[in-house]
Amino acid sequence: MEKTEIAKNFFIPMPVVLVGTQVNGRANFMAVGWCARVNGNPPMIACGINNDHATPGGITATGTFSVNMPSRALLEKTDYCGIVSGKTTDKSRVFDVFYGSTKTAPMIRECPVALECRLVQAVPLPTHTLFIGEIAGAYADTSVIKDGKPDFPVIDPLLLTMPDNRYWTLGEHAGDAWSAGKSLKLS
Amino acid sequence: MEKTEIAKNFFIPMPVVLVGTQVNGRANFMAVGWCARVNGNPPMIACGINNDHATPGGITATGTFSVNMPSRALLEKTDYCGIVSGKTTDKSRVFDVFYGSTKTAPMIRECPVALECRLVQAVPLPTHTLFIGEIAGAYADTSVIKDGKPDFPVIDPLLLTMPDNRYWTLGEHAGDAWSAGKSLKLS
Repeated sequence: MEKTEIAKNFFIPMPVVLVGTQVNGRANFMAVGWCARVNGNPPMIACGINNDHATPGGITATGTFSVNMPSRALLEKTDYCGIVSGKTTDKSRVFDVFYGSTKTAPMIRECPVALECRLVQAVPLPTHTLFIGEIAGAYADTSVIKDGKPDFPVIDPLLLTMPDNRYWTLGEHAGDAWSAGKSLKLS
Repeated sequence: MEKTEIAKNFFIPMPVVLVGTQVNGRANFMAVGWCARVNGNPPMIACGINNDHATPGGITATGTFSVNMPSRALLEKTDYCGIVSGKTTDKSRVFDVFYGSTKTAPMIRECPVALECRLVQAVPLPTHTLFIGEIAGAYADTSVIKDGKPDFPVIDPLLLTMPDNRYWTLGEHAGDAWSAGKSLKLS
């Protein structure tokens, strides 16, 4: 297949999350697409967050943050939290907030899944900081749990692609991991 | 909405990539779901990779790695690369390999998009290492570029959810980022 060189800001579909922090004593939420699991045991997450935003200060001040997964129904509110800065706008009443064991990482009741994290390490990068957190608690709506596991089509999460800046839904079940490739093992 | 506490190994849908390295002088590819953009300028990526695999040694030895995006058509081969270890299996002939400016980060011709990265930092974590790389080159099939941008439905990328361990396709275009929330700005 013929290849062409493209802009380096391209990336794969990214899960959209709302990172929750306390900023000036108030709950604040920022839309983030640069987030991934990074350690197995204990489970850890990392989020790459622009240093210009209010969120880095909130994470550093409390040593905690939350990662909330909005469903498609929250698309407009999620995008709003990516457009306006917590430095100039009070976002504490956009969502109904609850707290878990960390006491300082605000989580969003309207999100079907919410994780609270304790900061493990902050890795400074040129324009962003990579915040690595250990998952201290995971909460889900009882309605999205099926056979003891989260049911992703019911969660109806959002994905983001760049540089076209589009939100997408989750598509269809295409196969099973650690299973679909077994047939190639002996070839 | 009523919340229930769930297992902490839950996470949002993850983009599936094949991380390419040179292991013992041969191209090696590992299926990775823990990968995200982490810095804006210059563009950087981070991948959380289990220390037991062959890939960490390959990245450290050459200071380079690649991030290849398989389409749905490569599901079985991708899963295979997640099942068998480069420590015991030669995966250098699973795909047609090409190299870019780094000369040492093998990329996959069958993948519609491939990125080559130079290692910036390796962050040791309890069971994994977080490899942060600067994107040194980005390559795409000419057939997946539309109006100068990657066309994600044509790329047909794979996503992975855990702990149910399922692969998913990308769904439908649900809205535009940095746009859909503007209507809430004055309310």
